[in-house]
Amino acid sequence: MSKNDIHLDFDREERVGFPEIVYGLGKSTDQLLRILEQYREKEKPVLITRLDAEKAAALQVDDAENAYDPVSQTLLVGEIEAQLEGLVGIISAGTSDAPVVGEAARTLAYLGVKSETVQDVGVAGIHRLLNQIDEFDRFNVVICVAGFEGALASVLGGLLWQPIIAVPTSVGYGAANGGQTALHAMLTSCANGILVVNIDNGCGAAMAAVRMLNGMQNGMLDGHT
Amino acid sequence: MSKNDIHLDFDREERVGFPEIVYGLGKSTDQLLRILEQYREKEKPVLITRLDAEKAAALQVDDAENAYDPVSQTLLVGEIEAQLEGLVGIISAGTSDAPVVGEAARTLAYLGVKSETVQDVGVAGIHRLLNQIDEFDRFNVVICVAGFEGALASVLGGLLWQPIIAVPTSVGYGAANGGQTALHAMLTSCANGILVVNIDNGCGAAMAAVRMLNGMQNGMLDGHT
Amino acid sequence: MSKNDIHLDFDREERVGFPEIVYGLGKSTDQLLRILEQYREKEKPVLITRLDAEKAAALQVDDAENAYDPVSQTLLVGEIEAQLEGLVGIISAGTSDAPVVGEAARTLAYLGVKSETVQDVGVAGIHRLLNQIDEFDRFNVVICVAGFEGALASVLGGLLWQPIIAVPTSVGYGAANGGQTALHAMLTSCANGILVVNIDNGCGAAMAAVRMLNGMQNGMLDGHT
Amino acid sequence: MSKNDIHLDFDREERVGFPEIVYGLGKSTDQLLRILEQYREKEKPVLITRLDAEKAAALQVDDAENAYDPVSQTLLVGEIEAQLEGLVGIISAGTSDAPVVGEAARTLAYLGVKSETVQDVGVAGIHRLLNQIDEFDRFNVVICVAGFEGALASVLGGLLWQPIIAVPTSVGYGAANGGQTALHAMLTSCANGILVVNIDNGCGAAMAAVRMLNGMQNGMLDGHT
Amino acid sequence: MSKNDIHLDFDREERVGFPEIVYGLGKSTDQLLRILEQYREKEKPVLITRLDAEKAAALQVDDAENAYDPVSQTLLVGEIEAQLEGLVGIISAGTSDAPVVGEAARTLAYLGVKSETVQDVGVAGIHRLLNQIDEFDRFNVVICVAGFEGALASVLGGLLWQPIIAVPTSVGYGAANGGQTALHAMLTSCANGILVVNIDNGCGAAMAAVRMLNGMQNGMLDGHT
Amino acid sequence: MSKNDIHLDFDREERVGFPEIVYGLGKSTDQLLRILEQYREKEKPVLITRLDAEKAAALQVDDAENAYDPVSQTLLVGEIEAQLEGLVGIISAGTSDAPVVGEAARTLAYLGVKSETVQDVGVAGIHRLLNQIDEFDRFNVVICVAGFEGALASVLGGLLWQPIIAVPTSVGYGAANGGQTALHAMLTSCANGILVVNIDNGCGAAMAAVRMLNGMQNGMLDGHT
Amino acid sequence: MSKNDIHLDFDREERVGFPEIVYGLGKSTDQLLRILEQYREKEKPVLITRLDAEKAAALQVDDAENAYDPVSQTLLVGEIEAQLEGLVGIISAGTSDAPVVGEAARTLAYLGVKSETVQDVGVAGIHRLLNQIDEFDRFNVVICVAGFEGALASVLGGLLWQPIIAVPTSVGYGAANGGQTALHAMLTSCANGILVVNIDNGCGAAMAAVRMLNGMQNGMLDGHT
Amino acid sequence: MSKNDIHLDFDREERVGFPEIVYGLGKSTDQLLRILEQYREKEKPVLITRLDAEKAAALQVDDAENAYDPVSQTLLVGEIEAQLEGLVGIISAGTSDAPVVGEAARTLAYLGVKSETVQDVGVAGIHRLLNQIDEFDRFNVVICVAGFEGALASVLGGLLWQPIIAVPTSVGYGAANGGQTALHAMLTSCANGILVVNIDNGCGAAMAAVRMLNGMQNGMLDGHT
Repeated sequence: MSKNDIHLDFDREERVGFPEIVYGLGKSTDQLLRILEQYREKEKPVLITRLDAEKAAALQVDDAENAYDPVSQTLLVGEIEAQLEGLVGIISAGTSDAPVVGEAARTLAYLGVKSETVQDVGVAGIHRLLNQIDEFDRFNVVICVAGFEGALASVLGGLLWQPIIAVPTSVGYGAANGGQTALHAMLTSCANGILVVNIDNGCGAAMAAVRMLNGMQNGMLDGHT
Repeated sequence: MSKNDIHLDFDREERVGFPEIVYGLGKSTDQLLRILEQYREKEKPVLITRLDAEKAAALQVDDAENAYDPVSQTLLVGEIEAQLEGLVGIISAGTSDAPVVGEAARTLAYLGVKSETVQDVGVAGIHRLLNQIDEFDRFNVVICVAGFEGALASVLGGLLWQPIIAVPTSVGYGAANGGQTALHAMLTSCANGILVVNIDNGCGAAMAAVRMLNGMQNGMLDGHT
Repeated sequence: MSKNDIHLDFDREERVGFPEIVYGLGKSTDQLLRILEQYREKEKPVLITRLDAEKAAALQVDDAENAYDPVSQTLLVGEIEAQLEGLVGIISAGTSDAPVVGEAARTLAYLGVKSETVQDVGVAGIHRLLNQIDEFDRFNVVICVAGFEGALASVLGGLLWQPIIAVPTSVGYGAANGGQTALHAMLTSCANGILVVNIDNGCGAAMAAVRMLNGMQNGMLDGHT
Repeated sequence: MSKNDIHLDFDREERVGFPEIVYGLGKSTDQLLRILEQYREKEKPVLITRLDAEKAAALQVDDAENAYDPVSQTLLVGEIEAQLEGLVGIISAGTSDAPVVGEAARTLAYLGVKSETVQDVGVAGIHRLLNQIDEFDRFNVVICVAGFEGALASVLGGLLWQPIIAVPTSVGYGAANGGQTALHAMLTSCANGILVVNIDNGCGAAMAAVRMLNGMQNGMLDGHT
Repeated sequence: MSKNDIHLDFDREERVGFPEIVYGLGKSTDQLLRILEQYREKEKPVLITRLDAEKAAALQVDDAENAYDPVSQTLLVGEIEAQLEGLVGIISAGTSDAPVVGEAARTLAYLGVKSETVQDVGVAGIHRLLNQIDEFDRFNVVICVAGFEGALASVLGGLLWQPIIAVPTSVGYGAANGGQTALHAMLTSCANGILVVNIDNGCGAAMAAVRMLNGMQNGMLDGHT
Repeated sequence: MSKNDIHLDFDREERVGFPEIVYGLGKSTDQLLRILEQYREKEKPVLITRLDAEKAAALQVDDAENAYDPVSQTLLVGEIEAQLEGLVGIISAGTSDAPVVGEAARTLAYLGVKSETVQDVGVAGIHRLLNQIDEFDRFNVVICVAGFEGALASVLGGLLWQPIIAVPTSVGYGAANGGQTALHAMLTSCANGILVVNIDNGCGAAMAAVRMLNGMQNGMLDGHT
Repeated sequence: MSKNDIHLDFDREERVGFPEIVYGLGKSTDQLLRILEQYREKEKPVLITRLDAEKAAALQVDDAENAYDPVSQTLLVGEIEAQLEGLVGIISAGTSDAPVVGEAARTLAYLGVKSETVQDVGVAGIHRLLNQIDEFDRFNVVICVAGFEGALASVLGGLLWQPIIAVPTSVGYGAANGGQTALHAMLTSCANGILVVNIDNGCGAAMAAVRMLNGMQNGMLDGHT
Repeated sequence: MSKNDIHLDFDREERVGFPEIVYGLGKSTDQLLRILEQYREKEKPVLITRLDAEKAAALQVDDAENAYDPVSQTLLVGEIEAQLEGLVGIISAGTSDAPVVGEAARTLAYLGVKSETVQDVGVAGIHRLLNQIDEFDRFNVVICVAGFEGALASVLGGLLWQPIIAVPTSVGYGAANGGQTALHAMLTSCANGILVVNIDNGCGAAMAAVRMLNGMQNGMLDGHT
């Protein structure tokens, strides 16, 4: 195959407010190396998601130990400077949701946004959640990560005033159907105004949060420039 | 068609602890009249479920106004005497779940069991539920009725010690998929030991509750006779 | 059935920033009348969605002609005063999406938010969209309404910087599968940070937009009180 | 990732009548070791389900040979004392259902409940079942485990008076669809009052049985304390 | 539209051993009248299935009362003479399966084959079935008709030696999924050598039975001519 | 709702080679009247598809009897002049496919293309097809219309050299699943190079055929101008 | 786990006309060895299906090279004597269907029935089939094996008079959906009287064929003894 | 198994205009070697698709390095001479679609057709596409390859006049559902006259393009000979 299979979108940040993020799954090591090369030439930081440890090792980036996070399967190369105001809360139902929590947190870091994680507070032990619900007021946007039936999104939706981005995860088995049940449950939440992204899509949730923070800071009274 | 299309199972009570209940949907008025006739000959009370108002009227039973309940679409003909000990709580998420709540309550009444209903306490307004959760201790068995994403079952499962029978309802639209989403969400509840019946199956939930009450009273120390 | 089947959540606004909205489908005229009565006693405005014309007429509200909108199948009773700052753009792909556009617009009106609609600009005639894309900069939040394959969301996602709430509609036939295809297409959009709500859920999209506007005005530098 | 991803629910037993059980799938060895450590500190026994042999070995528990059961893929660490009254029968359709039967039995053991298993009595050779049906009277609760089309649940439902918890298994191929067919068949059983849990969920069935036994002994005449 | 939309296959009997049967659903009255006319010209009897009462009346055939059967929704016009040897047993689970039983019986009658029906013997009351199982030995082929979870097919398959044609019906609701659950359950029956046709396809089951009877009488020792 | 919900795409013909066609389903009579008005002003012919007889009557076009075809549910208003060279064959499996055949034929007529229909030649009576297969050589493009399992597409694909556009129809019941089975069967045809459009999409098949004919006449040696 | 997990059904042959066949998938080597032991004690031949090469080797049967067939993944141990009259034709669409063809052929051999295979005659090259269709008259029963869209079943159904057992295979990708498309296509075949078994179920097709041959020889005029 | 499992269709080219292509998946090395042998005897070039590197190596063809392309997983053995006029454009959405792009390009090469590829121009960065849209006028047929939601097909459909063959790919996760979402989105495209083939079916798209080019050159004014 010829080498014309890659066209990076370096002016996406100009257009939509945040840079392109590289989806690692299904790309060959050769393709990824060429992508990294282009970023290096532009002297821009790069985030690759869905990158397994073996492929990450093959890319041989500097300071690999810090650059690659095996839980979230993300590789972040380069320095992040800009810091967008606001705080995103990432709240998860169970320990097994950690990879998706991680993908969201790493993406926010790459996009220059602060986040805090509150993990393993699913509704099976709802007191773990209710005990600290008032403290969630510090978040400007909430990302809710849950597998199985995803009921955490509904409970948060009934209690919080912030925008809530629900991320169904593929955690579960049988009727959980690879995350489809959590996905559809979150979409049909009886709680109002819940927003949903694709299964395990921590990265997309983070980008949506950035759109909101951009709107909060630039979009409002002054208009967007 | 010949008339050999009906074989009622009058000794089911002997076998499984409760009588046959007639499923009205898909049966012709002619078939239902012949069924009623057989019950009348045996001098037994009868419950018909999934019976629309028009067909109910065509059956012309005595005291139709009391016998037929249009909300639950059930027809109960005959006197109920026996009273099985125990109290079943029927807890529902929303106003639109009333027909299923009704089917469960009417079936329990037919089977000689007391029930109480607690309606419209879904998790979108979770305080409505938490405010009275301690009072649910009076129930021996809990039937939880909910449509949309059915998160009520998970919340109850994390808070109550009783057997919980979750009934998904077809209330909802789009990704609710006629109740499939609530069904699968309940089956994959992160809360432990939740039991599930078919969509809108208030009648089945009631029968399962009766199996449990039978077990509680007869089955335990003395054995079943 | 007893009359304990309705428990309105009048302090939801306190909690989540906007009042409860009544979902009309599956509720009986009798239930809806009792709900209206409770709102009247509290002297609060009320919005009922998914209300067909026949049921709306049976409710016999004052000034029914203005109160009931047959396109969006919504009934809005009472005066709206408060006006939350910000402008929501509702952009739709086709003429047949009008009911969902209407539900979103009416819900925003009920919640005191201004909106503008840009209809029938689907990607089959993409110049209709590109010609006016710069003008969309005036929107603080964008709601994108589309049926069939829902490609409009992806195109907007690649061009706009705002938060985008995609509403799949049930417009289409065959493989459109009652809106499931648009739903899944929007969830898997190659454009980044797209948020999705349930099929035909114009009302939910509007509530999510209000969460964002609340966040923009209250949540940011000062914290939420 | 930080270490705040685990919050065990040690007072679940207080609340719902039985302790939390650890779901091993999707948890890293590191996470599981930290979980075991917490249980050890509390001096409580622990059950981990869905734990493959390799991960089990990595946990290096004492007396691993007895603690880990490779058929049911469960690890049970610690002494079980309390014994709840009652006997649960676990009846399965085929030899290949053994892992799910085992998960149910091990969970019951962990929860202090006696059980007996009756395996490989599926309806293809229905005499194997009918020959011993009377002896099932000794069970207070019946767990029915079956894959393929799961017809065993319907046959038991027509013959037994006890509460029946049906567990569909993923045994089968093609149209068995990973257990979905058995699941839906059990949910739509023509036999009355059948209760269903998720595919392969032997653990959940056991917990539901414990809820029932708790109800039978504490819940009935005296109330629950 | 031109009139070239109908090409009847009058030599199908020559080829496959039985004549074409007209599928009424989706055909206009005009099309059906032209079809009847062609049969009349050929002086052949005709069977139309899936014909609702209104359309049947519009066709105005002679002796309509006998020709049209409202339960099975079939119209049989003309005299049947030939009688193929053999007896087909049609065994059904419930009263609501009567239309499919009827379609099979009417089709067999049209194809010159004797049948007997045994209805309402589903496994919820399995003694109704076991009591008469020995008498089923008189059947050369068994057609088993059942909705809900279709467990009757598995029970028959474990007890009978004949070829068994299972017909799932659309009787049921919720997870019965319009007959898909019975269909898939029958396909994955643990009983051996069960054959399945489409949902509600009584007509197809009858034609398959005729193929078998043809094979039994012509195909065996002498070869087919 | 405001009147800005319609933006017709009058220069689509310039762009893609054929004019916009109006999809009638889900549009109100009021919307359709405004659309007709716009076409009248431009003095252009218009085709409306998926228009039921009642709505068609409400539009009160001139010469309604010729303009509206009830079988294909299409309304064609205005004179067609241009005639694109080439002949499209529309081959269908059964009499019940006539509405889709009609929609394709009417669309081709509107787009100025000649077509011939060969109906009711499904593979159940394959000689009807094989007898005339050589005559199909006169077609430049073949549209194959079939419901149920859609096997006609595979047989044609193995015998013909032309481009074949397969249109699955919703004809069938049960496992036919509203046309999904024919759709997926055509997509997985063992015959090579079969192209597929949406279920019942006769109109789309016609437009695809026009793209091909445009390509054949303009696109080839001379390039497209 | 205790050793009571196996109950072989040695009098199945008495009841249904053919012995139990062991389904290897999901059974442990230990379980299979105990099964083989029981057969050896009874001095009966045994067939194990769905047995991969590695597990087969672990069973260490005599004359393993002949006993185990790697294509059909079957192990046949013991001498087959009885020979049931009749000839079964196994006709397949493609080379990749060979494992299923093999499973059917091996099962027939185990059950004492002669078969012939006609492979790779799918409808993409329909002349391969039509050229030899007359020779198929020698078969008493036809088993049709096909993946992808399974159109071969429809073509055979329109041409042959014998009972036809269609076996969908999991050959194919994408919309073939693991054999579901072929399965549903065969169930909705426009050809009449086609019978269907589960995906890849060559063994079940063979058992159904034996039921038919039993019926042909014993069941007919003399009755079954 | 006997060796009669392969019947190559060497006169397919005569019939449908292009030779048979060998589908490698599911065929054993032994089967593939016998197939190659038959082609060698006929002195014909052969293309094998879906062939993994390991199996390719086992076939030991001459000049393997050029013959086997690991990206598209195709093996092309033999000299291609004939060159059909016309140019096919293969336009893809993302870098990960390269294998499908490659399969289409290699198949076209095998069939003697020139193609050009335009990769990584998905709608997330739509300017990459719009910048060069006018240059696409040089293509006679367009193949559009896209995963995720496949919106590229709709955008191209609204801008181009050529026949468009949309190939959904299995690139994506979660709700992308292995390519089903792109497949259904392309089928329901609001753009007109889009044609669709199976998921990842680059080979089928190429064959369909050849049918069109054949039609363009032979089929038009002169008829096909």
